[in-house]
Amino acid sequence: MSKARVEAFSDGVIAIAITLLVLSIHVPTPGPGGLAHELGREWPSFAAYVVSFLSIGVIWINHHAMLRRLVAVDHTMLTLNLLLLLILGILPWSTALMANFLRASSGQHLAAAVYAGSFLAMAVAFIAMQGYAMAHPALLRAELDPAARRSIIRRNRVGSVPYVLAIAAAALSSYLTLAICAAVVVFYALPRTTADPVRDGS
Amino acid sequence: MSKARVEAFSDGVIAIAITLLVLSIHVPTPGPGGLAHELGREWPSFAAYVVSFLSIGVIWINHHAMLRRLVAVDHTMLTLNLLLLLILGILPWSTALMANFLRASSGQHLAAAVYAGSFLAMAVAFIAMQGYAMAHPALLRAELDPAARRSIIRRNRVGSVPYVLAIAAAALSSYLTLAICAAVVVFYALPRTTADPVRDGS
Amino acid sequence: MSKARVEAFSDGVIAIAITLLVLSIHVPTPGPGGLAHELGREWPSFAAYVVSFLSIGVIWINHHAMLRRLVAVDHTMLTLNLLLLLILGILPWSTALMANFLRASSGQHLAAAVYAGSFLAMAVAFIAMQGYAMAHPALLRAELDPAARRSIIRRNRVGSVPYVLAIAAAALSSYLTLAICAAVVVFYALPRTTADPVRDGS
Amino acid sequence: MSKARVEAFSDGVIAIAITLLVLSIHVPTPGPGGLAHELGREWPSFAAYVVSFLSIGVIWINHHAMLRRLVAVDHTMLTLNLLLLLILGILPWSTALMANFLRASSGQHLAAAVYAGSFLAMAVAFIAMQGYAMAHPALLRAELDPAARRSIIRRNRVGSVPYVLAIAAAALSSYLTLAICAAVVVFYALPRTTADPVRDGS
Repeated sequence: MSKARVEAFSDGVIAIAITLLVLSIHVPTPGPGGLAHELGREWPSFAAYVVSFLSIGVIWINHHAMLRRLVAVDHTMLTLNLLLLLILGILPWSTALMANFLRASSGQHLAAAVYAGSFLAMAVAFIAMQGYAMAHPALLRAELDPAARRSIIRRNRVGSVPYVLAIAAAALSSYLTLAICAAVVVFYALPRTTADPVRDGS
Repeated sequence: MSKARVEAFSDGVIAIAITLLVLSIHVPTPGPGGLAHELGREWPSFAAYVVSFLSIGVIWINHHAMLRRLVAVDHTMLTLNLLLLLILGILPWSTALMANFLRASSGQHLAAAVYAGSFLAMAVAFIAMQGYAMAHPALLRAELDPAARRSIIRRNRVGSVPYVLAIAAAALSSYLTLAICAAVVVFYALPRTTADPVRDGS
Repeated sequence: MSKARVEAFSDGVIAIAITLLVLSIHVPTPGPGGLAHELGREWPSFAAYVVSFLSIGVIWINHHAMLRRLVAVDHTMLTLNLLLLLILGILPWSTALMANFLRASSGQHLAAAVYAGSFLAMAVAFIAMQGYAMAHPALLRAELDPAARRSIIRRNRVGSVPYVLAIAAAALSSYLTLAICAAVVVFYALPRTTADPVRDGS
Repeated sequence: MSKARVEAFSDGVIAIAITLLVLSIHVPTPGPGGLAHELGREWPSFAAYVVSFLSIGVIWINHHAMLRRLVAVDHTMLTLNLLLLLILGILPWSTALMANFLRASSGQHLAAAVYAGSFLAMAVAFIAMQGYAMAHPALLRAELDPAARRSIIRRNRVGSVPYVLAIAAAALSSYLTLAICAAVVVFYALPRTTADPVRDGS
């Protein structure tokens, strides 16, 4: 299995999952409520759409940064990549769940925890895949010395911490969970500095 | 991040969004109404489908014209591209909204403004991305002199004007908004002349 | 716009449209009816799915045969290709319509005509694109002499005749329409002989 | 038709089908039931999602292993590949069916048989395609001697046996069917040994 095929297939799944997110936004129909009011009530869907879209976008960027460091992909990498895509493929569902429950009087804490949990699961699958690659120098480009590999693993682990916080925050407020997830993608979108601790592959 | 990957991923998202548009057309089921009557009532869905499909097609063509001028993609370009795709990904929703409300007695003005607004947002994201590229010669092919760059930016800005008009027209009639958006794609589909002011990248 | 990009984007849209066809098959839920009975009632959906899937597959094969003969793609070709994809993108809708109405006591004739009509529209868009290419030798590989070009156009036109018959047959029976559309794809799937009149590009 | 195009198109369809699986998981809405209870009731959807996702992933890996052995693709291979994709395209439907009926008091046996049957049909289409390739040495890379070809065919046939068992098991329990299908993918995900009997192309 060539690296290029893994990359193309992963890109396909990621592009589809990111585009299916739009199905979580309810399309109003003419009715007594008034469209302006209906659209106002839809804002959790838009917020969840934006946060999920950008989060998947960040994973896509990191996925390529990871694959760029590889010269080969073995059976275990293929399996870990499939697990990563499996979790990523659930995000349209967890995003729709978050959109449905963000403002609900019951279930909003659990929904927010599931939402942030799906991001954490994605991050953990990514860390596992990256960690496996870093532990198998035969798969890696020659220029990655042990210190650079350790540094990449460390950055990845740090990158999953906000999602742990977002799950914990769900006990307080589903809005807080969404805000933490949004902060992660805003952080990524900021212009990079050389000291950026998670820029490379988390 | 190589330019080719950005292109392939963007193509994927654009191809999916354009194909998901069909989900905004309601599929009649057997019932008392009569199929001919049902299909007749569906025409706003078909009109919105055609206009949105061709508008996304035009953006796809312009997106490639833009990337063809680049030799590299930096972090800011990646972020702007992701924002462009985020807005593009919402079009299946705004198209379905337009289809639902075009003939409604209430909400049709707002729905049309949202519809044209989603195109304007897409054009603005495109202009931002193009403008950033034009302001960073290190990203560009050598043959683009400052005059050519200014000309491209000017054409892009002109290309967004019809969508501003379409939003304003929504206050008068949702049909007028749809007609203006349709006129934009018809204009693009016309055989090109060398004097065509928006042909290149808007 | 390079030929490769047009090919890749078209492949994307075709692959998505062909895969969205499955959404036209209703998924039964537990209920008083009994699953065996429910699945039996679903057969029009499966039949329409199979015929549409293979018809899109045939168009995909022909689309590549067409592009293989080209050395360049101009603005008009791009526009015609976008129109072809626009029609192709409607097939998940017309397939679902056919599935809903095949056995209905009212509307089945119109639904069948719309279904075969969507295939005819696709064939006509294909013929227009092929015809334009054949009329512009600058776009073509050098080895295509005028006789070969006329032969390709003739085959294409012949290939659209069954769909005209299928639309006419809708006045008699929706089953007959589906059978004619099915016969077209079975004909294509047969092992090729050198005398096969539509094999090349229709 | 080049091998690369067949591969790219197949990858597209497989990536879309695998990502559409998420639509089979119901998204709860706020209501009297309580979200925790609702999510608990959704577990058959998640189980079916995971098993189907990984099963399609395994077919994707095997599909590439098969194409890697080829130097050309003829008309019959194209047709067989289209049939394979047609069956694969139905999996989002059969997965949703399994999810809906796994715990039902009526219909669960039939739904499980249909579910495992869709995997068996996919395996049979794969075996037919592989068998055709192995019987036509002109399509194959030179290094495949007759013994290697017979071995590949044998492994493929063995790989379909679990799905026959899973269909038979549906008469006993839909859970048993799902467990057998899950065992197949777990088996594939295990680190490979040189004695792995189905690793290569089944």
